[in-house]
Amino acid sequence: MPLTLAWNRYGKCRVRLVKVRRTTGADDLVDLTIDVGLEGEFDSVYTRGDNKTCLPTDTMKNTVYAFARQDAVADIETFSIRLADHFAAKPGVTRALVRASQAPWNRITVGGRPHPHAFVHRGGEAWTTTVTRDREGLALSCGLTDLVVLKTRDSAFEGYPRDEFTTLPETRDRILATSITAVWTYRKGTSDFSARQRIRAALVETFATHESESVQHTLYAMAKAALSVAEEIVDVTLTLPNRHHLLVDLTPFGLDNPNEIFVATDQPYGLIEATVRRTLG
Amino acid sequence: MPLTLAWNRYGKCRVRLVKVRRTTGADDLVDLTIDVGLEGEFDSVYTRGDNKTCLPTDTMKNTVYAFARQDAVADIETFSIRLADHFAAKPGVTRALVRASQAPWNRITVGGRPHPHAFVHRGGEAWTTTVTRDREGLALSCGLTDLVVLKTRDSAFEGYPRDEFTTLPETRDRILATSITAVWTYRKGTSDFSARQRIRAALVETFATHESESVQHTLYAMAKAALSVAEEIVDVTLTLPNRHHLLVDLTPFGLDNPNEIFVATDQPYGLIEATVRRTLG
Amino acid sequence: MPLTLAWNRYGKCRVRLVKVRRTTGADDLVDLTIDVGLEGEFDSVYTRGDNKTCLPTDTMKNTVYAFARQDAVADIETFSIRLADHFAAKPGVTRALVRASQAPWNRITVGGRPHPHAFVHRGGEAWTTTVTRDREGLALSCGLTDLVVLKTRDSAFEGYPRDEFTTLPETRDRILATSITAVWTYRKGTSDFSARQRIRAALVETFATHESESVQHTLYAMAKAALSVAEEIVDVTLTLPNRHHLLVDLTPFGLDNPNEIFVATDQPYGLIEATVRRTLG
Amino acid sequence: MPLTLAWNRYGKCRVRLVKVRRTTGADDLVDLTIDVGLEGEFDSVYTRGDNKTCLPTDTMKNTVYAFARQDAVADIETFSIRLADHFAAKPGVTRALVRASQAPWNRITVGGRPHPHAFVHRGGEAWTTTVTRDREGLALSCGLTDLVVLKTRDSAFEGYPRDEFTTLPETRDRILATSITAVWTYRKGTSDFSARQRIRAALVETFATHESESVQHTLYAMAKAALSVAEEIVDVTLTLPNRHHLLVDLTPFGLDNPNEIFVATDQPYGLIEATVRRTLG
Repeated sequence: MPLTLAWNRYGKCRVRLVKVRRTTGADDLVDLTIDVGLEGEFDSVYTRGDNKTCLPTDTMKNTVYAFARQDAVADIETFSIRLADHFAAKPGVTRALVRASQAPWNRITVGGRPHPHAFVHRGGEAWTTTVTRDREGLALSCGLTDLVVLKTRDSAFEGYPRDEFTTLPETRDRILATSITAVWTYRKGTSDFSARQRIRAALVETFATHESESVQHTLYAMAKAALSVAEEIVDVTLTLPNRHHLLVDLTPFGLDNPNEIFVATDQPYGLIEATVRRTLG
Repeated sequence: MPLTLAWNRYGKCRVRLVKVRRTTGADDLVDLTIDVGLEGEFDSVYTRGDNKTCLPTDTMKNTVYAFARQDAVADIETFSIRLADHFAAKPGVTRALVRASQAPWNRITVGGRPHPHAFVHRGGEAWTTTVTRDREGLALSCGLTDLVVLKTRDSAFEGYPRDEFTTLPETRDRILATSITAVWTYRKGTSDFSARQRIRAALVETFATHESESVQHTLYAMAKAALSVAEEIVDVTLTLPNRHHLLVDLTPFGLDNPNEIFVATDQPYGLIEATVRRTLG
Repeated sequence: MPLTLAWNRYGKCRVRLVKVRRTTGADDLVDLTIDVGLEGEFDSVYTRGDNKTCLPTDTMKNTVYAFARQDAVADIETFSIRLADHFAAKPGVTRALVRASQAPWNRITVGGRPHPHAFVHRGGEAWTTTVTRDREGLALSCGLTDLVVLKTRDSAFEGYPRDEFTTLPETRDRILATSITAVWTYRKGTSDFSARQRIRAALVETFATHESESVQHTLYAMAKAALSVAEEIVDVTLTLPNRHHLLVDLTPFGLDNPNEIFVATDQPYGLIEATVRRTLG
Repeated sequence: MPLTLAWNRYGKCRVRLVKVRRTTGADDLVDLTIDVGLEGEFDSVYTRGDNKTCLPTDTMKNTVYAFARQDAVADIETFSIRLADHFAAKPGVTRALVRASQAPWNRITVGGRPHPHAFVHRGGEAWTTTVTRDREGLALSCGLTDLVVLKTRDSAFEGYPRDEFTTLPETRDRILATSITAVWTYRKGTSDFSARQRIRAALVETFATHESESVQHTLYAMAKAALSVAEEIVDVTLTLPNRHHLLVDLTPFGLDNPNEIFVATDQPYGLIEATVRRTLG
């Protein structure tokens, strides 16, 4: 039975790294979770159990920590690129992939002033980046995830096609709630990744102010806003679960419900995803 | 084989309630998860399958939604008390228990101003309350949970006893990280529950500024601070997991590690719990 | 402000221990997660930061691994008792608490025969034990958790009280599904803990065959069955979430639904708990 | 700013369906979680808020339940294909995607015999399938996930390259533990999906008996075994996290550790993935 190793990847996942930058004044905190993956010409590792080219995933983990000591880790993009470059140069490797996620910490405020070395975790939301280094060069995407937002007005859904299985009533006024995941791609050669904060603000503000005809409609408006505040990105992919809030029927209890009382549901949920790209003209 | 039904409780858990208060100006959002439990003289339900006194848990759920329409739900304490009073009056019930947890939403800022009907979820942290109504009256405890904090200095652990299984090195300088859960009890008759914000601030500020000799030492200082800013509470219980951040040994790579590079670990974790009570003199 | 340390406990949670018993023949596998907690006269640790009596939780962890090397770990009860005895003897300790949970592994079958050193994880269900050692002696409870069962017939719920918030229809035929958590207490002096398998069988078989008028009714029958197969236990506490399976209304699509198509829901859920005790006559 | 909607997909996720097949004898239970996704020419939905072609995700959910009533749901592949065919025929749709996951239930044994309508959940492991219907026809992949296995012998890792960040000791004897996810592709036209059980057995038995030089080496052997027992599949992709079990250093306590006492760790973990394909000769 002739077989081919058609694709392979291996690496280390969830390397948890906390770096404290202890400068003369206030401490800085960087809290990262990193995945490393390598693809390559590793057939003999698989087929013959020959580990000559198989860099241990334990070594990948050690490398992350050692690099973190030597590097300022000023932003996750630059640090991830440095790691990807290192691993891509290893024998047999045709592609190195580094994913990093940064947890959000704010300084604790004491007496109205930010404390120099105490922090409070802001919760769910995280910054993300994915770096791929292969023969075609470097690919870099960045984003954010788990940014949960909700609006109580300016969200409609009507005019949709009806078939024999349609029971959903049309509405001009519903709760719209989602957990934003955004991933964008920088133009080749970008080295300033500060667009992140501008893009985040554009996404959130557009979510708030858009007169929504559907999640799709708001997704497009959000993507457009992101592209308009950051010339250095060429596309953005948004993943927007529709976290349904169902109006409770209170009529059995002799009560009306003028869009006031809702059940928040976990499942099933809608899922709306799209990539919007700048047209290169 | 003679048997006794020594204890029983039943109810509905995780009733998800979102109320939008649609006043003339900005909308308010209240996002609650509620548990209801009843204890009582329900022996014949268990032993004979006679449901005459068994209020369905489905009815409990309906009651939460109907009450939420009629009530302002201005604070979770008052709403939970109202529910507990209702259920405690049902036939056979000797104790009604209502637990509520409120998720934190902030208004989205657009153009520097809070938006009237769009919100962003602040993440993990939640407000909690537990109300018990039985023959001895009403018991009310309140608190917060999942408030994650970390400090990079002013935390030591030394001078502890050593036995044949001790390998931990003493330290004057370690990362201290925890996820605060606090529960406090109000004096009988309290009806103003606004101490919450003051207590939260006292807990967080004390965590930040305390010169810690151990998690226990900081727990006590935090509890003391909470009791000092809220005369209306009689005790506070703190639950502080010790989220260990281990210093990475970089010497195999020819590098030092002056308290800069840490592994954040999930398990095992320390767990420190205590109740501090005002001494009634 | 005079304060009292009204209660305290500290310890290590989620110590993950896998022991391979490498005897001459087949290997045995024991997979445990252990919590250790100590209560005691530790006031000066909290109030003054004096760690003289504060056995590090890191030492607790080390002790678990060292004891596991010296002990056969034949059953989690005996191993937990040994740990509790050790910690209860430490200075200042008034109560030592050890909780253990054992993950279920079966041997992999190869060619119809159990393999001597390869295992497959059976999934959710775990064995549990809690040991408390204090001045009053030893208390031991055992149990199992996450044992998920479902029956498609012989489950009714009717004859319950109706109030202004009741909408639930009565039924003689519904799906009954739950995740069994059971905890039982042995008579003082019990040293044979093999009742576990008999109790598990009694719980599951009674769930299957009982003509259920409610979850409470079935809970009682299950508890009774457990007590009848194990003379050495004095009580059993069952915790039975009611995992609702809702009949889907297919009439909008011109279809009937003779108890065939259900939505399995996660929340809200009912929760039924009770302790049934042997009456000592 | 000219923009392009470069890619889009929307649908409903986690539709929870339980079907009871009530035949004359024993009841059958089918427990599925289904995702539906549609790609298509939906530009005006996104850019103009025109919902004329936007089939509601609520309708997708209804369709799943209605089809489940009409269909035997004999296997998840055939049922998923039927759903994908239905959705692919909707206006504007260029590709319909249906993913299904089946939870494992066994009959409860009572008195040595399988009970006709009571079931116990076997835990983690699930059957999966993904169906894609587009202009190029039907693509079908099947698999299983969360099948957790462990072996205490016959696993080595040595002979790997060492660099300045390598500290891992070589070993001929370690615990090998993983959670198997497998996905395979059937030849065009396959309508008998019973290979599932054969493939599962081949994967598990090969894991047990293989003399492993690395996870990669065992992955390849498992894939080869799967392909050899199922002529109807053309490739198999295996995803094998390496769930590290670390030998505990007991020398500080004067104890040896002859591969007996291990810490099971959650993170970081290795991750080994590959696709092995039958070479068409």
